[in-house]
Amino acid sequence: MASLTDALSRLQPADADAALAAGERQASLAKPDGSLGVLEILGSRLAAIAGRCPPPVPAHPVVTVFAGDHGVLSEGVSPWPSEATARMVANVLGGGAAVNVIARQAGVAVLVVDAGVATTIPDPPGGPTDDHGGPRRGRLVSAKVRRGTANLVSEAAISLEEARRSIQLGLSVADRLVDQGTDLIVTGEMGAGNTTPSAAVVAAVTGWPARAVTGRGSGISDEMLDKKIAVVEAGLERVAASHSVATTALSSLDGDVLLSELGGLEIGAIAGVVIGGALRRVPVVLDGLGSLAGALVAVKLAPVASEYLVAGHRSVEPGATAAMEHLGLEPLLDMRLGLGEGTGGCLAVPVVKAAAGLLNEMATSEDAGVSASTTS
Amino acid sequence: MASLTDALSRLQPADADAALAAGERQASLAKPDGSLGVLEILGSRLAAIAGRCPPPVPAHPVVTVFAGDHGVLSEGVSPWPSEATARMVANVLGGGAAVNVIARQAGVAVLVVDAGVATTIPDPPGGPTDDHGGPRRGRLVSAKVRRGTANLVSEAAISLEEARRSIQLGLSVADRLVDQGTDLIVTGEMGAGNTTPSAAVVAAVTGWPARAVTGRGSGISDEMLDKKIAVVEAGLERVAASHSVATTALSSLDGDVLLSELGGLEIGAIAGVVIGGALRRVPVVLDGLGSLAGALVAVKLAPVASEYLVAGHRSVEPGATAAMEHLGLEPLLDMRLGLGEGTGGCLAVPVVKAAAGLLNEMATSEDAGVSASTTS
Repeated sequence: MASLTDALSRLQPADADAALAAGERQASLAKPDGSLGVLEILGSRLAAIAGRCPPPVPAHPVVTVFAGDHGVLSEGVSPWPSEATARMVANVLGGGAAVNVIARQAGVAVLVVDAGVATTIPDPPGGPTDDHGGPRRGRLVSAKVRRGTANLVSEAAISLEEARRSIQLGLSVADRLVDQGTDLIVTGEMGAGNTTPSAAVVAAVTGWPARAVTGRGSGISDEMLDKKIAVVEAGLERVAASHSVATTALSSLDGDVLLSELGGLEIGAIAGVVIGGALRRVPVVLDGLGSLAGALVAVKLAPVASEYLVAGHRSVEPGATAAMEHLGLEPLLDMRLGLGEGTGGCLAVPVVKAAAGLLNEMATSEDAGVSASTTS
Repeated sequence: MASLTDALSRLQPADADAALAAGERQASLAKPDGSLGVLEILGSRLAAIAGRCPPPVPAHPVVTVFAGDHGVLSEGVSPWPSEATARMVANVLGGGAAVNVIARQAGVAVLVVDAGVATTIPDPPGGPTDDHGGPRRGRLVSAKVRRGTANLVSEAAISLEEARRSIQLGLSVADRLVDQGTDLIVTGEMGAGNTTPSAAVVAAVTGWPARAVTGRGSGISDEMLDKKIAVVEAGLERVAASHSVATTALSSLDGDVLLSELGGLEIGAIAGVVIGGALRRVPVVLDGLGSLAGALVAVKLAPVASEYLVAGHRSVEPGATAAMEHLGLEPLLDMRLGLGEGTGGCLAVPVVKAAAGLLNEMATSEDAGVSASTTS
């Protein structure tokens, strides 16, 4: 199993030659040049990630749903109680969460990882009968780095050592999944209040102001949103003061330091999955704001990791746009989703399969005997 | 089998009560209100279409690819020769077209209908091996209404009787598919030069100027685009003069009359599928500009048919935006596709299944034991 230091030293850029080969192949297929739009761009990226053209069509995708709790919840940034995290984990294990439904239909297995849930996870509730042939329930990996984070307004959310352990957790999960045959990883997260640290990480790394990256999360009032923005600002100011930098210069801090200061454990684990996917040359499809925050932490530690990422969708959270711009990603879908759990990432899996499938299975213009007039 | 007159007289609006019930169910599920965005809106629409909540999850979708040729090709509006239509039909039958790949992955069967191909369809070329378990090849229905259309610049593309027969063809295809168990129909089209009559139909029905709805189709030069716009304008002017109306008042003409004047046979057949889907309460997922033109013709004949439509994606063709606005549709995907064939419609099928699946399979907040604080 790769250690984090080892993994970071072994990361390679994606394969530009394979991307070029994919572009040439796209041009030879039985269709007008460029007429498959984003699917062509994505196909080339998948070739670069895999290091070969055509890239493999993902056949064993997994969504990793990392769960954790957040001390900042005590500031009143969300109407959901901390206990909701454990109950939602149980709901995923029972197969009744939104991510289960979308994952089943897309042929994606669901793995829940408890990276730091504060309360005890109850037994899964009885759910509806599964008649869609997919895996009925989620699997659980219990790997609490600690029970919830501290309040980022008043202190570091987790210690630097805990931050590194959360990243290592995600790296190990990715590594083991790929060993078992997983060929695409979707990131997902759950945790009451987690859009607050996510927004803080996005603001710190991208330099966008707190007000521009902080959104309504699970659907909060104007008043609670103002409170949430103030909380993010206070957290950023505390970190800046603690490290003697301006709040606009927080991006000069290392990824693991920012993760330690702002949290959370599931964000760190997602950062680890991003690094692990890149190391193993498996595409990592990002979901919402928590996933993007994790990716920003990963890319601060290892810039080339961004070349292995696919943005599944544009979350309604405003910070998603800031993060994707910083990561150089264009989202595949834009459906005003704001749930997290990996829902938007799983919804994008058929698009990823299509992009790879087209490069593998389409006839060429020559095969089909069709071509445009050269006198056009 | 429903005749067109009979079908039009029997069409009913979609079920508003079922849509309301779906909205209530969405609110009871284990997620923050509205957090599934477009999937929730789509779920309610599917309930209205089916007339029940939860709506069925489509299990036997079919993409109907209607093919036809266009006399207007002689005006130099496309670099592709008329023979390309027959060859592309053969390529779909052989399983090597883009629509085959995307349809296979989405579990969509491919039915090609020759509504008016001008030349003989050659034997399918040998293609790559199918290892994805789906149907390897497309099925063909030969139902030529006539061999290609006339040049819309100088005369009616087809007679009024041929226009009605093309609509009847689509209606019959939809009717037979639903009898055989099809529970979702994706529309697709192929035909060299067919974005020209499509743009003309869109301009005529929506009132948008030719320049705003005419695009690059299969990828044409600036010079050819100018020619194409002039051709659309000339066609619209001829029809206006022939019916003694202003070119800005062409929408006062009946749908079958506009279809007769501008063509084409595959657009008429798609109009028939739209009417047939609505009659049988099966969702019709539209693909690109040709599908939208067909839907506009259908909705002129039967306005309630619009309630049974789903816009699969936003084509790069500028006329798509005009048509969707007129039809009151928001596209599910926006991936800069411009190929046609039903590719964008098939790519949206997993999204449609997800929207229906969520209403059927998610646990409620009560089941999951999660709820937001009432003091928020």
